[in-house]
Amino acid sequence: MRPRALVTGGAGFVGSHLCERLLAEGMQVVCLDNFSTSGDANIGHLEPVSEFSFVRHDIIEPISIPGPIHYVLHFACPASPKDYLLYPIPTLKVGSLGTLNALDLARAKGATFVLASTSEVYGDPEVHPQRESYWGNVNPVGPRSVYNESKRYAEALTMSYHRTYGVRIRIPRIFNTYGPRMRLDDGRVLPNFMGQALRGEPLTIYGDGSQTRSHCYVSDLVEAIYRLLLIETDEPLILNLGNPDEVTVRDLAEEVLAVTESASEIVLQPLPEDDPKVRCPDIHLAQQVLGWSPIVPRRDGLRMALPYFQKAVQEVEDPESVSCRIERRNLYAPRSEGKESSP
Amino acid sequence: MRPRALVTGGAGFVGSHLCERLLAEGMQVVCLDNFSTSGDANIGHLEPVSEFSFVRHDIIEPISIPGPIHYVLHFACPASPKDYLLYPIPTLKVGSLGTLNALDLARAKGATFVLASTSEVYGDPEVHPQRESYWGNVNPVGPRSVYNESKRYAEALTMSYHRTYGVRIRIPRIFNTYGPRMRLDDGRVLPNFMGQALRGEPLTIYGDGSQTRSHCYVSDLVEAIYRLLLIETDEPLILNLGNPDEVTVRDLAEEVLAVTESASEIVLQPLPEDDPKVRCPDIHLAQQVLGWSPIVPRRDGLRMALPYFQKAVQEVEDPESVSCRIERRNLYAPRSEGKESSP
Repeated sequence: MRPRALVTGGAGFVGSHLCERLLAEGMQVVCLDNFSTSGDANIGHLEPVSEFSFVRHDIIEPISIPGPIHYVLHFACPASPKDYLLYPIPTLKVGSLGTLNALDLARAKGATFVLASTSEVYGDPEVHPQRESYWGNVNPVGPRSVYNESKRYAEALTMSYHRTYGVRIRIPRIFNTYGPRMRLDDGRVLPNFMGQALRGEPLTIYGDGSQTRSHCYVSDLVEAIYRLLLIETDEPLILNLGNPDEVTVRDLAEEVLAVTESASEIVLQPLPEDDPKVRCPDIHLAQQVLGWSPIVPRRDGLRMALPYFQKAVQEVEDPESVSCRIERRNLYAPRSEGKESSP
Repeated sequence: MRPRALVTGGAGFVGSHLCERLLAEGMQVVCLDNFSTSGDANIGHLEPVSEFSFVRHDIIEPISIPGPIHYVLHFACPASPKDYLLYPIPTLKVGSLGTLNALDLARAKGATFVLASTSEVYGDPEVHPQRESYWGNVNPVGPRSVYNESKRYAEALTMSYHRTYGVRIRIPRIFNTYGPRMRLDDGRVLPNFMGQALRGEPLTIYGDGSQTRSHCYVSDLVEAIYRLLLIETDEPLILNLGNPDEVTVRDLAEEVLAVTESASEIVLQPLPEDDPKVRCPDIHLAQQVLGWSPIVPRRDGLRMALPYFQKAVQEVEDPESVSCRIERRNLYAPRSEGKESSP
């Protein structure tokens, strides 16, 4: 029998790429999503695939999936600052209730559990780059704590399920990732810049642009998660996943202007509260454990993602394209009952 | 009408003292507890009080309390390392589900919400003493994270309810507290030492005893929480509460030997994982906002608590006393249905 994986948040940016990859590797995939910060556009093309099924469900409600599940990949969560600041309490609930439901399912099915954690557990780091052993510098009561503390809680809960029930767990701490299917309006720096450059608007830098980010192309991340899934060990694995090639936000703006051949100017805006000043993964552990390194340089990644961003900008501007997307969305209407459906 | 307060964890060490104080101040008190780490012995004497009522309930299940509630004091949680390491997943659940239920009730009733937070949100602090603005140094995946991260999550959730729904909130970060009704076997250093000294056993120090703690007598803490409850402001208040009189664990052992007039020796054991090396509150903010300072010196507090600890040691050793306690416990048997009962 083919291995069967559940991907929560499977219609999201990273989740949908994961679904594709697992299908390509011969797995059955159950994709669970409530479309709160995603949409069917990311998975519509998977609908004809017989090994793919979709469950429209909010993970903060208990889940029951008939049949075996060998892998639970818990990727459901508003992940961009714009989203989680807009949905603070749902974000906190998905970290606790959502993770609890996903863990209970993994435990009941004897499945390996993957928690999509984040570089945000390091907060505004005081050591650089960040290793997995670093405990982080997070403001527990700041606006961003709805995401950071939610993910730290989810890590603690996941470790507890391992320690208490012996659930096989992996916790990738995912650093900034980019590629096709990022939402143009998700508020993160790279899609912001791409959208602004392609619309000929000024590129907005928050702060002086000296803060750094490191961006991993989505196929590199998915490769690492796939290896993490299959690795044979009962030990809990906590691994940074990202591309350590660090760039200042200002330099990234210049690179986006070059790739998009845009004449946009760059403007500075005040830095939001608790915005991390530096962010760069130390990926030695992932390299050692997974035999993996990211292979897509940023310049190539930006070029590969360009057609997607061009189309996304066009769809927003072209009402006819938008109506097409709304029609596609209706395909899923009968699935909104929270029941599992076959493809 | 008298103001009415709900105290979750009201049968616990601090919770039961709070119930008493609120009753003494003329409030009606609903005490909610599931006795997971406490017992009816702490509140049996309150049963005849007409303004006191008890609900046996696990706060991780949704709660409904008929009638008005003006204050919700959320003190339910396993609080000693021994307890939360024994109940890791319930501890994590009470921080998320329990706090969510308590906040939902406060929101529905328009009540002021007090979250019993902890010095443990600072973890193993790298600044000393700790101010409220310090973000802490917590291992998100260590064994103690089930408590620390749970409380940090609860703080983030509480702040979100304030920001989203305008719930009036206060977050006391409570440092080590001691006094009558501490469980002898709760694993914390002070009742450990008292019990060992009174039984004539060696006093166990984990590590070399150079780690520091600061201990606040329970009446001082309760005074601060009462002031925090009544203060007229819609601003969220996050305040350290504790006694900044710092003592090394070794010196504390000597003080306990003196107070108990015990001839016990002192023995050293290995330090457990993630045990904080220093712990001392900076209480300037509480002093300024509440006009409060602890007034009970440790030597007096230890003397005041001594009769309780003597009785507790005796009850454990004397089967007849234990049977008395079991009989008292039976008074509550009809209440174990999770229903509210009148006093």
